[in-house]
Amino acid sequence: MPHQVTLKEVAARAGVSYQTVSKVLNKQIQVSKETEERIRQAVEALGYRPNLIARNMRQQRTRLIGYSWQPAPPDQGNAILDLFLQSMAQAAEGAGYHLLCFPHRSEGDVIAAYRDLIETHRVDGFVISSVEFDDERVRFLRQQNFPFVAFGRSNPEWDFPCVDVDGADGMRQVVEHLLHLGHRQIAALAWPEDSRVGQNRMEGYRAALQAAGIAPRPEWIQRGPGVVDFGQAATARLLDLPAGQRPSAIVAFNDIMAIGAMRAAETRGLRVGADVAITGFDDHPMVQYLRPSLTSVRQPVWEIGQRVMMMLLDVLDDRLPQTACVLIPPRLIVRQSSGGPIT
Amino acid sequence: MPHQVTLKEVAARAGVSYQTVSKVLNKQIQVSKETEERIRQAVEALGYRPNLIARNMRQQRTRLIGYSWQPAPPDQGNAILDLFLQSMAQAAEGAGYHLLCFPHRSEGDVIAAYRDLIETHRVDGFVISSVEFDDERVRFLRQQNFPFVAFGRSNPEWDFPCVDVDGADGMRQVVEHLLHLGHRQIAALAWPEDSRVGQNRMEGYRAALQAAGIAPRPEWIQRGPGVVDFGQAATARLLDLPAGQRPSAIVAFNDIMAIGAMRAAETRGLRVGADVAITGFDDHPMVQYLRPSLTSVRQPVWEIGQRVMMMLLDVLDDRLPQTACVLIPPRLIVRQSSGGPIT
Repeated sequence: MPHQVTLKEVAARAGVSYQTVSKVLNKQIQVSKETEERIRQAVEALGYRPNLIARNMRQQRTRLIGYSWQPAPPDQGNAILDLFLQSMAQAAEGAGYHLLCFPHRSEGDVIAAYRDLIETHRVDGFVISSVEFDDERVRFLRQQNFPFVAFGRSNPEWDFPCVDVDGADGMRQVVEHLLHLGHRQIAALAWPEDSRVGQNRMEGYRAALQAAGIAPRPEWIQRGPGVVDFGQAATARLLDLPAGQRPSAIVAFNDIMAIGAMRAAETRGLRVGADVAITGFDDHPMVQYLRPSLTSVRQPVWEIGQRVMMMLLDVLDDRLPQTACVLIPPRLIVRQSSGGPIT
Repeated sequence: MPHQVTLKEVAARAGVSYQTVSKVLNKQIQVSKETEERIRQAVEALGYRPNLIARNMRQQRTRLIGYSWQPAPPDQGNAILDLFLQSMAQAAEGAGYHLLCFPHRSEGDVIAAYRDLIETHRVDGFVISSVEFDDERVRFLRQQNFPFVAFGRSNPEWDFPCVDVDGADGMRQVVEHLLHLGHRQIAALAWPEDSRVGQNRMEGYRAALQAAGIAPRPEWIQRGPGVVDFGQAATARLLDLPAGQRPSAIVAFNDIMAIGAMRAAETRGLRVGADVAITGFDDHPMVQYLRPSLTSVRQPVWEIGQRVMMMLLDVLDDRLPQTACVLIPPRLIVRQSSGGPIT
């Protein structure tokens, strides 16, 4: 661990008293432009970073938690946003906090919005979601030592507080349900290999098949973007396989790919749920109204929102080691598309 | 217009100087408990209300806009929340503002959350949505003279700034589309009569039929809650009418009732889109995936979010008379359920 630069060292280098540096940095007094500039230069030269938790204790907090999210594609909608925001806002309010929602920026300057909010002292902490490998938000907030909690995991070697759905467990439940119905040839509509969430779900798919003594054929694993067209095209390829290799069940890594899969099956004149089983993931509120209704995996969104916010409040109050990560299992919802009862 | 009580009158009644009252009310000095209490009593007795815009000019603004919304029923999801929040947050950020999201409270104490945020100086203004007749939020915020803009109208005699979708125009587009296809017997799945949004949509239904010289039969108008079960039961009743009275088209006031209507038609062995036309309203992102895909009416959510926020920023900067109301027309999306092309 690098040497922690102290306020005393900054004061010595700037040629002012400890009290002056402290008050200027905490904006408790105004000093001449020259003095302020000397302090600023000393801070920069020494790489001084204030202990934020201690500073929060001294300063008035904003009692605001920043949150931003990537807009859902217009043809999909966001299945969890409403409940996730309500849950977090409710948990925050109990402790006198509120959510500050800020707009998502395009790839290039994702970090700029976070930096702005930190530098203008707008928020006490952040919640981030849709976390990926090498996530630049995680990298930045860890560098800044700024409080945050993630809904989702990132690189295994990075320690930071997070809550995540156990996607491997969800996919295991799906595959075991299909095995129980007698399926042995089970294909997957998956995301590209660099998807963090996709990798997690793939683990569950492989583990459940392995436990049943089944080695999936390479062509059973179709990877692509999580959209209807890919789901439809990939399923058409799967249904073109020779009889002995053709899957009798297809598990999609999200509901939208499952909708594409259902279209491909219908196009062949196959009855989904009877001739071929198809499952989704996320349990979008509307997939129960599809014909046939879609078997899917539901994330416990309310619980996730509560846990994320309680964890962040713990971090802000210094009650939690900043490395805890909580996994929550999702729940399989069996419907007609995998042969479930007609409702 | 009632006499506007001045700070001078408050000072005279409290027996302190003008400056003292001003500084105490703006929290710039602390005085004895007794003095504070005398001032509080004078404020109350005279009904003094500070000019908020002037106060904002003097005080530092919070640069936060409060927003809360009723959670969607779990089986429906919120079709517009993601885009509405993104749009408002983006428009706000351009002016240095952010959204403060606070949790919805149950019917009894809806106002308490607004009062708390005003009294603790957490926000500069509010956006409210899902506005109804006699809406208590509108009543309260007008009484408080606190800046807000509504997405939705309320009582016609109440003047306040708002942006609304022209639901009458949307329903007119739906009915004219069906008339154009040759339908003459067009029924409606509507909300109870006290629904503000429902009344607006009903106007469009009636006006379009009237313009075509059609007087709707009373039994064509089915009123009930906007849920699947009601849509299904009401459609079953409509399909039970004798041949000369039975509707050939059913317009639902939301997508969820239309889904119920489709189920009722399927149960009778009718082909939706060919034997009976069914339409929805809201264009939920997922209704394009129903079989048949659902004809619906799409609200210009991004534009609404932008207009709402720009209007509120104008109110905060005193650039707008607080009575403007903007109506935005929605857009008909024709799909298979009303006989549109198969996609």
